[in-house]
Amino acid sequence: MRGPLWVKDDSANPTHSFKDRVVSVALTAARGLGFSRFACASTGNLANSVAAHAARAGVPSIVFIPGDLETGKVITTAVYDRDLVAIEGSYDDVNRLCSELVETDEFEDTAFVNVNVRPYYAEGSKTLGYEVAEQLGWRLPEQVVIPMASGELLTKIDKAFTELVEIGLVEAPANGWRVFGAQSAGCNPIAVALHQGAEEIVPVKPTGIAKSLNIGDPAAGLYALEAVRRTGGWMDYADDDEIRDGIRQLARTTGVFAETAGGVTVAVLRKLVESGKLDPDAETVVFNTGEGLKTLDAVADLVGPTYRIKPSLRGAREAGLLH
Amino acid sequence: MRGPLWVKDDSANPTHSFKDRVVSVALTAARGLGFSRFACASTGNLANSVAAHAARAGVPSIVFIPGDLETGKVITTAVYDRDLVAIEGSYDDVNRLCSELVETDEFEDTAFVNVNVRPYYAEGSKTLGYEVAEQLGWRLPEQVVIPMASGELLTKIDKAFTELVEIGLVEAPANGWRVFGAQSAGCNPIAVALHQGAEEIVPVKPTGIAKSLNIGDPAAGLYALEAVRRTGGWMDYADDDEIRDGIRQLARTTGVFAETAGGVTVAVLRKLVESGKLDPDAETVVFNTGEGLKTLDAVADLVGPTYRIKPSLRGAREAGLLH
Repeated sequence: MRGPLWVKDDSANPTHSFKDRVVSVALTAARGLGFSRFACASTGNLANSVAAHAARAGVPSIVFIPGDLETGKVITTAVYDRDLVAIEGSYDDVNRLCSELVETDEFEDTAFVNVNVRPYYAEGSKTLGYEVAEQLGWRLPEQVVIPMASGELLTKIDKAFTELVEIGLVEAPANGWRVFGAQSAGCNPIAVALHQGAEEIVPVKPTGIAKSLNIGDPAAGLYALEAVRRTGGWMDYADDDEIRDGIRQLARTTGVFAETAGGVTVAVLRKLVESGKLDPDAETVVFNTGEGLKTLDAVADLVGPTYRIKPSLRGAREAGLLH
Repeated sequence: MRGPLWVKDDSANPTHSFKDRVVSVALTAARGLGFSRFACASTGNLANSVAAHAARAGVPSIVFIPGDLETGKVITTAVYDRDLVAIEGSYDDVNRLCSELVETDEFEDTAFVNVNVRPYYAEGSKTLGYEVAEQLGWRLPEQVVIPMASGELLTKIDKAFTELVEIGLVEAPANGWRVFGAQSAGCNPIAVALHQGAEEIVPVKPTGIAKSLNIGDPAAGLYALEAVRRTGGWMDYADDDEIRDGIRQLARTTGVFAETAGGVTVAVLRKLVESGKLDPDAETVVFNTGEGLKTLDAVADLVGPTYRIKPSLRGAREAGLLH
């Protein structure tokens, strides 16, 4: 990269992922609409955010997660002492069950942030796009690299930029902006569809360490394809080793410790530069959507103390620290 | 509590503890003084913050930690790919070794944030006091409850309030402010000295889950005693079960997930109210100095999914979710 490269880091939110943005918007709407309980189907970050928001608002919540979720994301949701349901199945199974539950009498007062109040939730993602423009001094970047799970975040950041131009708050870059999408190799149906020039997305059974992106049947996948094609961007994907390298490279160079989704985005940025799909001279923003503390397991075997010594000058000298 | 009760939550900093404040001040001073490497003796949060700041600044760092530190705090420091030294001993052993290293030729260009540039580091804590005043609309609270490790944070928040009054930015409450200190039962030398009416602090060998507060020989302990006595406050301590209850109570009622130090502070607040030492009608601020993601082990065995079901309506019904 020769042009300016920015990291939009969303790990300082109350539960340390971008989901706090969409949950805040969705639950504010849900209360206005008269719902009395909050819920979601989640790969972890959303669960965490919904349970925390419900605790803060003093409202009951019931959160549905896949049974194999990382321990950290289970604990950070369960600590709020609200209902947490582990489902023996994938995220797509969890999502399907929630779509059924929302139709029952017993759940008619329950707002599932990503099911029956999903429109509000989806629009909440635009705040990430607005903030990028604001933080650049009311300008748009020429290129953005965005992680994709359902594909919704990518389409909404593109929408945010479009709206800001339409209402005259910012000018579009001379050649427009280009939108790039990042997936993990273990769950890459949107990127594969782009690579194959397809008009449909073939669902996959997700694998791999980037669990927060493991949506095998992405609800907004076709819209993400459209946005990338329209703007002249591209998509790619990274395997688990590349994701871990991405996490460490970002940490080492910026001080930002990203969760696996951030590792995906950084690893894909590297691929896009190497393949010439992304212009290394153009101003670029990559999005880190979550905090590394949430997915410690991903790097736990790779990093640790570089020395282990006895508490004495002799111990330090023998370890080579005084040379 | 009948009066206003505020949580000053410091978990949104770059590495999610209040240490980012003191490190930022200390390392800015260190660069100005010509040091070319950053270092610290740490119970974990400081290690994390120093390594991240060094990565961000592109400066080498070497961080010293006790060998039994929580895995999470080791990983979040090691991920920055800088030198990390595990010492087979307690924090006090680590601190003693760093005091020796700083006198060697090989470390003469190394700034230990809590040893040879400690004055800058200590003053950095005042920003927490300043922000409380600012966020209350340039007022001071009547009571503050502050976790104590070295005791420095407590003395510096008291100093921040004093300075703000002296320069006329705020008025002191009618009866002044009262400062309260919180320790864990596994490491309570300052609180015990207060309870015994002593003028000296007897060091202890720390135990218990609140590792970030485990400084058995607290450098600012006498100053903390002085501030508490002068303002008419008090100190108390909480055992591991009470700390875990404090974490869950704070999460359940506010949405804030604190690390063990925050659990200590909330648990001690409860004790201070029950014993009548703290006035439940007066405006009170409790400090959460770190993020629960950093000490998941403390609550891992206590919280988890409330249900585990198959991905079907029948599974949900059998579990009682549709009643």
